[in-house]
Amino acid sequence: MQIHPSHSTVHRSGSRADIRVPFTRVALTNGETFDRYTTAGPGSDPEVGLPPLRAAWVAERGDIEEYAGRETQLLDNGKAALRRGEAREQWRGTRPRPRRGAGVVTQMHYARQGRVTPEMEYVAIREGCDVELVRSEVAAGRAIIPANVNHPEAEPMIIGRRFLVKVNANIGNSAVTSSIAEEVDKLTWAVTWGADTVMDLSTGDDIHTTREWIIRNSPVPIGTVPIYQALEKVDGDASKLTWEVFRDTVIEQCEQGVDYMTIHAGVLLRYVPLTAQRITGIVSRGGSIMAGWCLANHEENFLYTHFDDLCEIFARYDVSFSLGDGLRPGCTADANDEAQLAELRTLAELTQRAWEHDVQVMVEGPGHVPLNLVEENVVLQQEWCHDAPFYTLGPLATDIAPGYDHITSAIGAAAIAMHGTAMLCYVTPKEHLGLPNRDDVKTGVITYKLAAHSADVAKGHPGARDWDDTLSRARFEFRWHDQFALSLDPHTAEAFHDETLPAEASKTAHFCSMCGPKFCSMRISQDVRDYVATGMAEKSAQFLELGSSVYVDDETYSASP
Amino acid sequence: MQIHPSHSTVHRSGSRADIRVPFTRVALTNGETFDRYTTAGPGSDPEVGLPPLRAAWVAERGDIEEYAGRETQLLDNGKAALRRGEAREQWRGTRPRPRRGAGVVTQMHYARQGRVTPEMEYVAIREGCDVELVRSEVAAGRAIIPANVNHPEAEPMIIGRRFLVKVNANIGNSAVTSSIAEEVDKLTWAVTWGADTVMDLSTGDDIHTTREWIIRNSPVPIGTVPIYQALEKVDGDASKLTWEVFRDTVIEQCEQGVDYMTIHAGVLLRYVPLTAQRITGIVSRGGSIMAGWCLANHEENFLYTHFDDLCEIFARYDVSFSLGDGLRPGCTADANDEAQLAELRTLAELTQRAWEHDVQVMVEGPGHVPLNLVEENVVLQQEWCHDAPFYTLGPLATDIAPGYDHITSAIGAAAIAMHGTAMLCYVTPKEHLGLPNRDDVKTGVITYKLAAHSADVAKGHPGARDWDDTLSRARFEFRWHDQFALSLDPHTAEAFHDETLPAEASKTAHFCSMCGPKFCSMRISQDVRDYVATGMAEKSAQFLELGSSVYVDDETYSASP
Repeated sequence: MQIHPSHSTVHRSGSRADIRVPFTRVALTNGETFDRYTTAGPGSDPEVGLPPLRAAWVAERGDIEEYAGRETQLLDNGKAALRRGEAREQWRGTRPRPRRGAGVVTQMHYARQGRVTPEMEYVAIREGCDVELVRSEVAAGRAIIPANVNHPEAEPMIIGRRFLVKVNANIGNSAVTSSIAEEVDKLTWAVTWGADTVMDLSTGDDIHTTREWIIRNSPVPIGTVPIYQALEKVDGDASKLTWEVFRDTVIEQCEQGVDYMTIHAGVLLRYVPLTAQRITGIVSRGGSIMAGWCLANHEENFLYTHFDDLCEIFARYDVSFSLGDGLRPGCTADANDEAQLAELRTLAELTQRAWEHDVQVMVEGPGHVPLNLVEENVVLQQEWCHDAPFYTLGPLATDIAPGYDHITSAIGAAAIAMHGTAMLCYVTPKEHLGLPNRDDVKTGVITYKLAAHSADVAKGHPGARDWDDTLSRARFEFRWHDQFALSLDPHTAEAFHDETLPAEASKTAHFCSMCGPKFCSMRISQDVRDYVATGMAEKSAQFLELGSSVYVDDETYSASP
Repeated sequence: MQIHPSHSTVHRSGSRADIRVPFTRVALTNGETFDRYTTAGPGSDPEVGLPPLRAAWVAERGDIEEYAGRETQLLDNGKAALRRGEAREQWRGTRPRPRRGAGVVTQMHYARQGRVTPEMEYVAIREGCDVELVRSEVAAGRAIIPANVNHPEAEPMIIGRRFLVKVNANIGNSAVTSSIAEEVDKLTWAVTWGADTVMDLSTGDDIHTTREWIIRNSPVPIGTVPIYQALEKVDGDASKLTWEVFRDTVIEQCEQGVDYMTIHAGVLLRYVPLTAQRITGIVSRGGSIMAGWCLANHEENFLYTHFDDLCEIFARYDVSFSLGDGLRPGCTADANDEAQLAELRTLAELTQRAWEHDVQVMVEGPGHVPLNLVEENVVLQQEWCHDAPFYTLGPLATDIAPGYDHITSAIGAAAIAMHGTAMLCYVTPKEHLGLPNRDDVKTGVITYKLAAHSADVAKGHPGARDWDDTLSRARFEFRWHDQFALSLDPHTAEAFHDETLPAEASKTAHFCSMCGPKFCSMRISQDVRDYVATGMAEKSAQFLELGSSVYVDDETYSASP
């Protein structure tokens, strides 16, 4: 879906006909165009789903097999489904049998063999970089292309510090709210505004079915936290969780096409007591579930002890690890403490282990961190985890503003991304208070896109500032329509402008409501430019001469060297 | 006005009965209280104005005189007033004759003499610091207490990097919008939510009268940009501006009680050509007016050539300079360029000159700056301007998000304040698009309060994190009402919570709508804490032993040394 009449979709082609990377082209009133990275996908009818863009690429590698797959059980949709005797709103599209690799079929595996996949080429076109950069970063583990063989609908994208900073949007129902249709709508809305990946964090009823609808309609990689569903299967009693239940849930999700999964394998038994003196203890749901399990059973975290088994599963579907930071700080007071850093050391160990299986990995990070401690988080993670991509939630720079935590966290997010975080998990205005609705999803995504872009600009990412400069030129030249069209959110920009000056004429006027025509600095500044352009050649010589003799002294900066 | 039923006003007293500093006390449900810095003032009837808190302090110093004052002219309210033959809505309260010093009556002057004024003591109580810190910082020019002798209604406050980071809110009408009553309402709304100073940037009709209503009702210092009114007096033609018109306008505003004035004295003739190749030229209104004047008259900026005359005026009313950065960048591409830095050198020179007159100074800064260049702005300003307080507008970290520029700029604002900016000028969602309405003012203030507080926390400002910790404790203990009451904006926090779970019972429930009761990590985490508290003494010994023998290897972080 295009969000503005001046936007259209264009494609850049690769080495073969079926590599066609979409961009949003903004047509400007001065005849120029500006192409924007797009995550919106081609659009889908939710009951039909998206076309399987990558199906042929996966198949032609000749290293995968179709198989019957695990049979869906009523329990997959939770107790309510069991009670009803059926799941609600089964997805109605056609779905091929699941696929898996005969052996390892990860993008990392191919990259390490020196093979350039269509996925890598797609990503390189999308990022405007050399494909060898993509391949080598994936091979080194410094970037991942989350791309489950069972989610061929997704457009390949890359997460790594050498590439554009990405944004994840969380959606999902909970026990007390929302329907499947609402969640699919949130997905579509999130990618429309620029979400690079979406996590389905459903914890309520119909988890399996909700996820099916989401994956089949998602043009972006989908992440999950499978422990949520596993817990549902044991009736919410963390102590009853077992490796077997968890493993079965993971396979269920692998077959559906989940592209990356948060695994809280770093919450070790001996780290749990480290959280007891914190102000907010353990705030990660997955982290607290595993901590509860460890304490109740007095055993080591089964995600840790079975980590190699997980790697073997992930390798056959190309599911990426998102190593969860179950002990992340839940308030600024708890940031960068022993519990957090102990877990990070373990995540570093697990990163290496996953890489031994050629499985792609990113590492999750906090949370709540005062600005002076933000950089340390990236530095330690990059050093200890050998540059595996960092994926942080915010972090919130202060705890005092519930209702505005998209902003408190965007401050930390921009800072941490500038220092090297590869993907930012958005925070919506409802954080700490409730589940995001459609408007919150949009606000969260836009807020995080601007934070991510601020980091791209700060990093001097090639071409990042072109967008700013194109918009700034439009602003300076009073091309109001272009300014709106180039905005992250054209609707809001135009609506705000129109609140004071709705007339069409005012959108071509060389002033705006802030200052009125007489005070318009942009207009005066244009006059200055004209003056300088026409009369300055000789005048400026005079100015400088004058300046040298009259105004320049030791304290004064001299414009000429 | 108190914004929440659990808030009340308490006073801390100083060495004399008339020094009573208000705080907002938040009564928590666990019997504790938390006191917050407040800017709301005692509340006023707009037609009567606030009581003259400082009148006696000013009078008893015995160094000022009442005098007839400049006669208000119809032109002071612009052409519309001239046409009508009268100004609109004259302020109806009683107003004493203006006062001015026989000599220098600035807080800096007293501080340098080693005198502790009631204003300094008030500020020290407000900030919770030693009064000698206040005196010495003001004496050194590292902090200012903006306090015009003709604005006795204002509660003394301090701007300097050793103190809490402050927030300014801009209000004011323009040629195309808004009434006097609306502007007074915006003022009251801004201070209710925490604006530490307010700038009246009116450029429309009835400038003089609007300002009178604002000052008489303002418990915070008021800033202005007098060149706007001066321009109005010469019919909007910048080339017709003269020192005489400007000087008369400044005295008019000094007599009304403006506490600080933005003076664009650093826009020198020879710097103007440096802006010609910029993407957005000159974006400061005052800067472009002075640049236009310089070019039209081919003379040096009269604010620069008459700077000592201005100092003499300011010294007699205790008006502080806010040295305007007329050449600040208007887009990220133009940040930290030759034009900006040349002007900053001149502002440094002018800072020293003002200090020779014992006149208080702060220096204004940008604007639009990519995150990687933010720190340099503070470092250079602090070094060149000998630690005079820095007062920055944002800066915006990217240009691509009109409609969200309160956020793009809060990102830059938090970063620049962490590095030492003393006051942040807010940016509202309407920036670049229109004038802020009441809602925008609130959003802008709250956004900037959280940015300023993030910086206080990052700087390790004494006591700053207490607020975060108190709220985090309430959050962890499911004291929902306390969490709301402690929030920067209790109304929004509670409304967001109630969207999903409005029932009163859910505000005492040990879970929320995000996860539902089963998944509540906070609850599980409480269990962990209880478990650790009761059973961990012996268990933890076992854990560590287990850890040492089974799990710890070279790669694994050991919790015990």
